[in-house]
Amino acid sequence: MAVYTEVSDDDLASFLSRYEVGELLSYKGIAEGVENTNYIVHTTTGPYILTLYEKRVSADDLPFFLGLMEHLAARQVTCPTPVRDRTGNHLGELCGRAAALVTFLEGFWIRRPKPEHCSKVGHALAQLHQAGADFKLTRRNALSTWDWRPLFERFASEADSIAPGLEALIKAELDVLETDWPLALPEGVIHADLFPDNVFFLAKDVSGLIDFYFACNDALAYDIAICLNAWCFEQDFSFNVTKARALLRGYEEVRSLTEDERKAMPLLARGAALRFLLTRCYDWLNRPAGAVVNPHDPIDYLRRLRFHQSVRSIADYGYGDGSR
Amino acid sequence: MAVYTEVSDDDLASFLSRYEVGELLSYKGIAEGVENTNYIVHTTTGPYILTLYEKRVSADDLPFFLGLMEHLAARQVTCPTPVRDRTGNHLGELCGRAAALVTFLEGFWIRRPKPEHCSKVGHALAQLHQAGADFKLTRRNALSTWDWRPLFERFASEADSIAPGLEALIKAELDVLETDWPLALPEGVIHADLFPDNVFFLAKDVSGLIDFYFACNDALAYDIAICLNAWCFEQDFSFNVTKARALLRGYEEVRSLTEDERKAMPLLARGAALRFLLTRCYDWLNRPAGAVVNPHDPIDYLRRLRFHQSVRSIADYGYGDGSR
Repeated sequence: MAVYTEVSDDDLASFLSRYEVGELLSYKGIAEGVENTNYIVHTTTGPYILTLYEKRVSADDLPFFLGLMEHLAARQVTCPTPVRDRTGNHLGELCGRAAALVTFLEGFWIRRPKPEHCSKVGHALAQLHQAGADFKLTRRNALSTWDWRPLFERFASEADSIAPGLEALIKAELDVLETDWPLALPEGVIHADLFPDNVFFLAKDVSGLIDFYFACNDALAYDIAICLNAWCFEQDFSFNVTKARALLRGYEEVRSLTEDERKAMPLLARGAALRFLLTRCYDWLNRPAGAVVNPHDPIDYLRRLRFHQSVRSIADYGYGDGSR
Repeated sequence: MAVYTEVSDDDLASFLSRYEVGELLSYKGIAEGVENTNYIVHTTTGPYILTLYEKRVSADDLPFFLGLMEHLAARQVTCPTPVRDRTGNHLGELCGRAAALVTFLEGFWIRRPKPEHCSKVGHALAQLHQAGADFKLTRRNALSTWDWRPLFERFASEADSIAPGLEALIKAELDVLETDWPLALPEGVIHADLFPDNVFFLAKDVSGLIDFYFACNDALAYDIAICLNAWCFEQDFSFNVTKARALLRGYEEVRSLTEDERKAMPLLARGAALRFLLTRCYDWLNRPAGAVVNPHDPIDYLRRLRFHQSVRSIADYGYGDGSR
């Protein structure tokens, strides 16, 4: 929610002169993106988003992220398309930072999603999984199951300051997940962060998916489990089975879940809840004094985790029942 | 530099339905404006700026500000034009705040203005003064000469923590300015905050003036004095007479200074420097811990004030000499 790097008009004009995008008309820093600095840039050829990658994004990962967006956009998954400069690169440098110019997507994210939005998101997620199947680059999930315990150990001794008993709860959960985590599920490119604010809608349809900066190779069904966490709980943290049913059905309009994926879903959903619980705990305990960005409250994901612990099968997510 | 109020898609769509601006396509909070929350809004009829007025702007002043922008825009002074809703109002309410939708101006502000920019700004300022002459509403300058001492007294005892001797210097300066301030200069509507970030350029021409939220009725020449402070000093605080000459000449292409105005200019420039020194000292001493907005360093204006104290006549600002 901040502009970390102020770009001068001279520097921007010089940067843009390397692209075939016409003349600069205006640019304004936008209050979106926790990790990077974003500007909305108008040129004589239209609107664009300019992203300057700040320190939390590894430069080594950028060819994967930008290449993926270009790959998906060419396969009708609407997402920002990186603009290549005259020499064919989609990665440049501006104000000492790696920078990219991408197409502007109309649409806006839905603050209070309804079941019909969840259905469209499920559909779009499956399309993303199919379109990503022939993407050549790979990226390891930096927040995979095996990264959770080392992350936890960085704040374990302070965990109970967030909620009494949290240290023991996470430790027990890690023991279960590391033992039972399914290793033979269908894998591919996943978004890994498809929260409501990363899905734009226009007139009830998905108009674009954004923010691919957690995308990686991992189990496809784990991406669905992330969406169950991100889209199917109410503001009072109650689980909305109608939304989950819509999401899973929307997904299966494009790609059917395998038997193994269906069986694994409750455990995957626990894992997804724990993954966000862990990063939120860490960010919460390490927020700088006077931070521009307010970290999310970790407790939201503790409640989601507890719900998933109570789930016996994918049927509890509304899967496979006849109701509408 | 912040979005103080988060607007939901439902609330925005409902707000926009009162205007003839088509359907909402996208909206993003922009990191501009210290006082208010601003969004860039795209609809099927084009881009707009949506402003939510936060607590530092008095609701009673909004009809003056919005009426002035509409008045000026109708007289070829390019500035954001408030959009009237279907009932003819240009002031609405959104998220419990007064809110207005204005047209989007292409252009961007010049980080390192050159003399030719100063010339264009002088020209545009005089056009604004002429176009404002028949504006019917009036607004008292809330930061006039007579408001400076009460403001100073709110932080006088802490002033020396900013710079040793500052309290005595400001006190002596107030004594001079309150005694000698000219009271019979031509008056009218002034912008009162025409800093580089409030002037958009496109291809070397002014494409728009923005941020009229300090506009008021006061001496026209005082507005020029503010611009001399805002545009004609270098980053090392040295005065650039070439820029000042260009600014004054640009102004006189449209409106000639009177004899009284020329005589008063050094004192007006001291007053303008003191006005910004005072508000910056106050903001500096009262910045909240962990503030999103970093206040400007007041010392910049102490240096400008000292320069103007050394000036003997408007000739020291490059006025009336034959050089180019």
